[in-house]
Amino acid sequence: MKIVIVGGVAGGASAAARARRLCDNAEIIVLERGHYPSFANCGLPYYVGGKIQSRNKLLVAPIDMLRQRHRLDVRIRSEVVQIDRDNKQVSVRNLESGEEYTETYDKLIIATGASPFRPPLPGIDGPRVLELRDLNDADRMYELATSGVTRATIVGAGFIGIEVAENLVRRGIHTTIVELSEQVLPPWDQEMIAPIDEHIRAQGVDILLGESATSFDDGPDGLTINLKSGQALKSDFAVVCIGVRPESQLAADAGIQCGDRGGIIVTDQMQTNDPDIYAVGDVTQVSCFVSKTPTQIPLAGPANRQGRIAADHIFGRQSSYRGTQGTAVVGVFEKTAAMTGLSEKQLKRLDIDYEKVYIHPANHAGYYPGAEALTLKLIYAPKTGVILGAQAVGGDGVDKRIDVIAMAIQGGMTVEDLEEAELCYAPQYGHAKDPINMAGFVAAGVIRGDQPVVHVDSIDPQMFLLDVRSEAEFAAGHIPGATNIPIEVLREHTDEVPKDKTIAAYCKVGQRGYLATRVLMQRGFNVVNISGGYTSWLRSQ
Amino acid sequence: MKIVIVGGVAGGASAAARARRLCDNAEIIVLERGHYPSFANCGLPYYVGGKIQSRNKLLVAPIDMLRQRHRLDVRIRSEVVQIDRDNKQVSVRNLESGEEYTETYDKLIIATGASPFRPPLPGIDGPRVLELRDLNDADRMYELATSGVTRATIVGAGFIGIEVAENLVRRGIHTTIVELSEQVLPPWDQEMIAPIDEHIRAQGVDILLGESATSFDDGPDGLTINLKSGQALKSDFAVVCIGVRPESQLAADAGIQCGDRGGIIVTDQMQTNDPDIYAVGDVTQVSCFVSKTPTQIPLAGPANRQGRIAADHIFGRQSSYRGTQGTAVVGVFEKTAAMTGLSEKQLKRLDIDYEKVYIHPANHAGYYPGAEALTLKLIYAPKTGVILGAQAVGGDGVDKRIDVIAMAIQGGMTVEDLEEAELCYAPQYGHAKDPINMAGFVAAGVIRGDQPVVHVDSIDPQMFLLDVRSEAEFAAGHIPGATNIPIEVLREHTDEVPKDKTIAAYCKVGQRGYLATRVLMQRGFNVVNISGGYTSWLRSQ
Ligand SMILES: Cc1cc2nc3c(=O)[nH]c(=O)nc-3n(C[C@H](O)[C@H](O)[C@H](O)COP(=O)(O)OP(=O)(O)OC[C@H]3O[C@@H](n4cnc5c(N)ncnc54)[C@H](O)[C@@H]3O)c2cc1C
Ligand SMILES: Cc1cc2nc3c(=O)[nH]c(=O)nc-3n(C[C@H](O)[C@H](O)[C@H](O)COP(=O)(O)OP(=O)(O)OC[C@H]3O[C@@H](n4cnc5c(N)ncnc54)[C@H](O)[C@@H]3O)c2cc1C
Ligand SMILES: CC(C)(COP(=O)(O)OP(=O)(O)OC[C@H]1O[C@@H](n2cnc3c(N)ncnc32)[C@H](O)[C@@H]1OP(=O)(O)O)[C@@H](O)C(=O)NCCC(=O)NCCS
Ligand SMILES: CC(C)(COP(=O)(O)OP(=O)(O)OC[C@H]1O[C@@H](n2cnc3c(N)ncnc32)[C@H](O)[C@@H]1OP(=O)(O)O)[C@@H](O)C(=O)NCCC(=O)NCCS
Repeated sequence: MKIVIVGGVAGGASAAARARRLCDNAEIIVLERGHYPSFANCGLPYYVGGKIQSRNKLLVAPIDMLRQRHRLDVRIRSEVVQIDRDNKQVSVRNLESGEEYTETYDKLIIATGASPFRPPLPGIDGPRVLELRDLNDADRMYELATSGVTRATIVGAGFIGIEVAENLVRRGIHTTIVELSEQVLPPWDQEMIAPIDEHIRAQGVDILLGESATSFDDGPDGLTINLKSGQALKSDFAVVCIGVRPESQLAADAGIQCGDRGGIIVTDQMQTNDPDIYAVGDVTQVSCFVSKTPTQIPLAGPANRQGRIAADHIFGRQSSYRGTQGTAVVGVFEKTAAMTGLSEKQLKRLDIDYEKVYIHPANHAGYYPGAEALTLKLIYAPKTGVILGAQAVGGDGVDKRIDVIAMAIQGGMTVEDLEEAELCYAPQYGHAKDPINMAGFVAAGVIRGDQPVVHVDSIDPQMFLLDVRSEAEFAAGHIPGATNIPIEVLREHTDEVPKDKTIAAYCKVGQRGYLATRVLMQRGFNVVNISGGYTSWLRSQ
Repeated sequence: MKIVIVGGVAGGASAAARARRLCDNAEIIVLERGHYPSFANCGLPYYVGGKIQSRNKLLVAPIDMLRQRHRLDVRIRSEVVQIDRDNKQVSVRNLESGEEYTETYDKLIIATGASPFRPPLPGIDGPRVLELRDLNDADRMYELATSGVTRATIVGAGFIGIEVAENLVRRGIHTTIVELSEQVLPPWDQEMIAPIDEHIRAQGVDILLGESATSFDDGPDGLTINLKSGQALKSDFAVVCIGVRPESQLAADAGIQCGDRGGIIVTDQMQTNDPDIYAVGDVTQVSCFVSKTPTQIPLAGPANRQGRIAADHIFGRQSSYRGTQGTAVVGVFEKTAAMTGLSEKQLKRLDIDYEKVYIHPANHAGYYPGAEALTLKLIYAPKTGVILGAQAVGGDGVDKRIDVIAMAIQGGMTVEDLEEAELCYAPQYGHAKDPINMAGFVAAGVIRGDQPVVHVDSIDPQMFLLDVRSEAEFAAGHIPGATNIPIEVLREHTDEVPKDKTIAAYCKVGQRGYLATRVLMQRGFNVVNISGGYTSWLRSQ
């Protein structure tokens, strides 16, 4: 068996290593265009910022290890320029010598990844307009960032843009982020990411939303980034991080089927339309685990596991890719945003019915020092309660809650399963009723009709806004037009609540508002609780 | 509807609060023997140690809040001394006045918890032999611990004993722990808890295993704790934490059925044999989620949820308790031990077939600073791969992995589901192949026969021990009798490996040993990998 793998990093190296374990006498050739196989793409921003100090650490599996331990024929600076399916061979260009040769295969695995998208803007190819995909890019950025420069502009506020921003700030560089959409970190829902936006700005980063770069002028006094609005930003350099595109041209040219957005179409065993050719990682189009619709989510976990699955299939192991859940996390100046499953905006786009709840608990028992607030949004099917997605932002413990819900989604579990989840509890780790349980309680209450809710984006001006917090809390700020009746005395003051209107009760986070809702419902009022309370309302403003 | 609740802390207060939400005009009386309802038992050790500074913070729901917000008739210092089922009434003793009165009920909820076990040892009732259950106990221990004393002895190395030890050390007190069994934290398997034992000793705590107190002598120069071995420990005070016993006498006296170990027997809706009487929390016997056998696991999460379920059933909501998974966590001087499901020793006791694997990954990508080693033991059904339990020890990220597996157990999921788990990955949070995936890979490999393993406790002296680490690693220490052939050169040296013996390959943690196993298997050798490698072997010594 002779396996040729194109691309030698996350998906490719994983496929190669797994294939070697499954078959020690297979011939396995890994062709990598760059200078290094198997490096830590995800660590690059932190190397630029100096958080990771040793460049060597980024070489996860150095070439010698792959050669000796795994007996892989790894060839760097080797670009595959053509796939000849009829003769089952590829043409390889040695980028050092310029020479080309062919290599036959029994099975071919395409793991070429995705390259940063570079729109054809004037000046974008200038020397001070960077991108960040590989070690060469990182070296260049490292050099610039440590050369005494003071101003950088990042175009694009996705994961990589935000990680680069954090790391340039770490180097003392004043950083501006320009983002086309109306929020940073577009995969998250806007209201969830608002506190992260605020937190980034609080570090001195300028964020320009609804804005885009139209051209780059490289002049003697620095780089000018011209924006759609007419504004011009002076910078020492710019980094373009506006998403990636599958590197599928090679495959497409050989008649391998690709999807609308360029990803190679694969089966659950990562086979393309040519059964001898597999594709894994960022170059593929996969199906979304929740909606079963086609998607492209360029993340390292899926790439690694897909590589493993392709090798499994070649050697007759039964494993199959279940689709991508979109579980993602990003660190933002010591805060964390994480998500799994579908976002609300994706659900809207796909026209899938959903309900949602928000909670704002602390990551662990409030009486134990160091508790940090987190916000958790749980999205689920309105009738069955099957979990469709979740997002969380905050500090410690955010990734934990999303991982637990990711597992629940994989298991097809419901909000009732979250109610009954039995999770680790000691005061420094969680709560006797963990945020996971709490989200389950609230969502199940909504489904059962015990807790009718209204979301801040749907509050109707006709509603009677009832603030059940204390007088002091009310005085410190409230939703305009609200009437204050603290929950403690509500039962004696129900005559002040109108019977002919819908009452929208609220408190700080939703819990007292819920109790008020129960008190009023049982007295015949038409009442809903504002989900997430004043905290969610404030974020929506 | 008139509901009387006996006991007003985790289970009782939760039942009361939920009942109130479900029915605002029910009469709900909470009878609590102590001075405070709804306090943070779990915070008591940290208050003693000064980590939690404000005593007030321990009052999670102060009595006024329960009265005003939840309209609960909370009566403290009120002990229920008798249940009269025929007349559906309880006798209540006012512990302040000594007076007794009766209170009728429509539904009674028993949430009396469990009290520290105090064996009838000479001197155990002396003033310097403490226990820790409530705020009074904490006040007493606080006073002693801050009075300039220097030596304390803790009898019992369960959660509470260990937490108390940590907090006495925090106060600068030299602490000795005496434990009857051969390990600290008996719910965990011994080999898993070995590094925690070491870590506790490294803080200056003396641990005496296989040892127990036989009597306490209170003398002018301090307390003497006499041990089974004949040894006598001088201390300023002792704390007895050798487990708890359900406070079920009250119920038993009224003909409520209890199990062998004293817990009140309940249905999944928390009903006792008297349908108008419920029992929740530490006082109950529940079934184990995994084995379906009766168990008593005194933890706050289950108590809280059971209280909610009892209230649900009274008010016609469909919810039911699924059994206790035994998910638990304990912080030990900045390290963490966590577990979920059944331990290996429980499985043995229950004679349930299982397989297990050990991995020793870092909590997050090694190339990102601050990675900490953790050890994860995954226990599963040998054929189906259904997960039966997991234990982890280490630093950050231990609770997260156990919570994810707890959710997987609840969902009846298998090791293959762990292989395909899609979890949060960025370098400061995890790995592209998270420890959860890794445990799934290894376990699935064992099931599929791709990775035959042997555990350190089953290594046969007839086996040929093959150390595939580097020469330097081998030189620094190895299993006696092992032969060193580094994995990188193994393929050229297979002639040095005997064909007529079982080869037990190993490396530092199991990964290279696995690769060696693959290499040799495919060449016709009879080979197994030592699960967890040299790290696991060292721990077993
Ligand atoms: C800066 C940065 C930070 C990231 N952070 C995270 C994170 O925190 N979490 C996360 O989950 N993901 C993160 N990612 C994404 C993650 O790195 C990718 O999803 C993953 O590497 C994809 O694996 P892959 O094997 O498909 O592609 P890649 O890892 O990109 O590997 C593809 C390789 O193929 C080579 N190649 C392409 N074409 C050819 C050819 N014709 N011939 C030969 N070789 C070729 C390329 O040189 C490349 O090295 C990050 C990515 C970047 C760039
Ligand atoms: C020091 C300590 C640390 C702990 N740490 C943790 C931890 O980190 N994580 C965890 O999950 N669990 C922990 N626990 C266990 C947890 O607190 C219990 O599982 C939980 O409180 C049980 O709830 P419960 O309602 O059943 O009983 P309790 O909370 O004990 O409440 C029972 C109440 O009933 C009252 N009562 C008893 N009999 C009568 C009567 N006849 N009349 C009136 N009142 C009566 C008692 O005074 C008591 O206040 C800890 C416990 C202690 C003591
Ligand atoms: C380094 C690299 C080549 C390793 O590939 P790999 O060997 O398949 O993966 P790992 O090192 O994670 O090891 C996983 C294997 O070891 C086994 N293993 C892990 N721990 C083990 C243990 N303690 N005992 C036995 N086996 C173990 C697993 O079962 C698995 O083998 P399997 O797939 O045959 O079941 C590849 O992951 C890579 O190139 N990574 C860097 C690039 C990258 O991912 N970038 C994006 C993220 S920054
Ligand atoms: C304090 C105590 C009385 C609270 O009981 P509780 O009100 O049932 O529990 P919580 O405060 O956690 O609130 C949970 C309720 O609020 C609701 N809720 C929580 N956050 C909400 C939000 N943002 N929006 C709407 N509802 C919310 C939940 O749905 C749940 O209501 P439900 O059960 O009717 O579905 C009880 O937990 C207690 O006594 N705790 C201390 C004792 C203890 O547990 N000790 C051991 C651990 S230290």
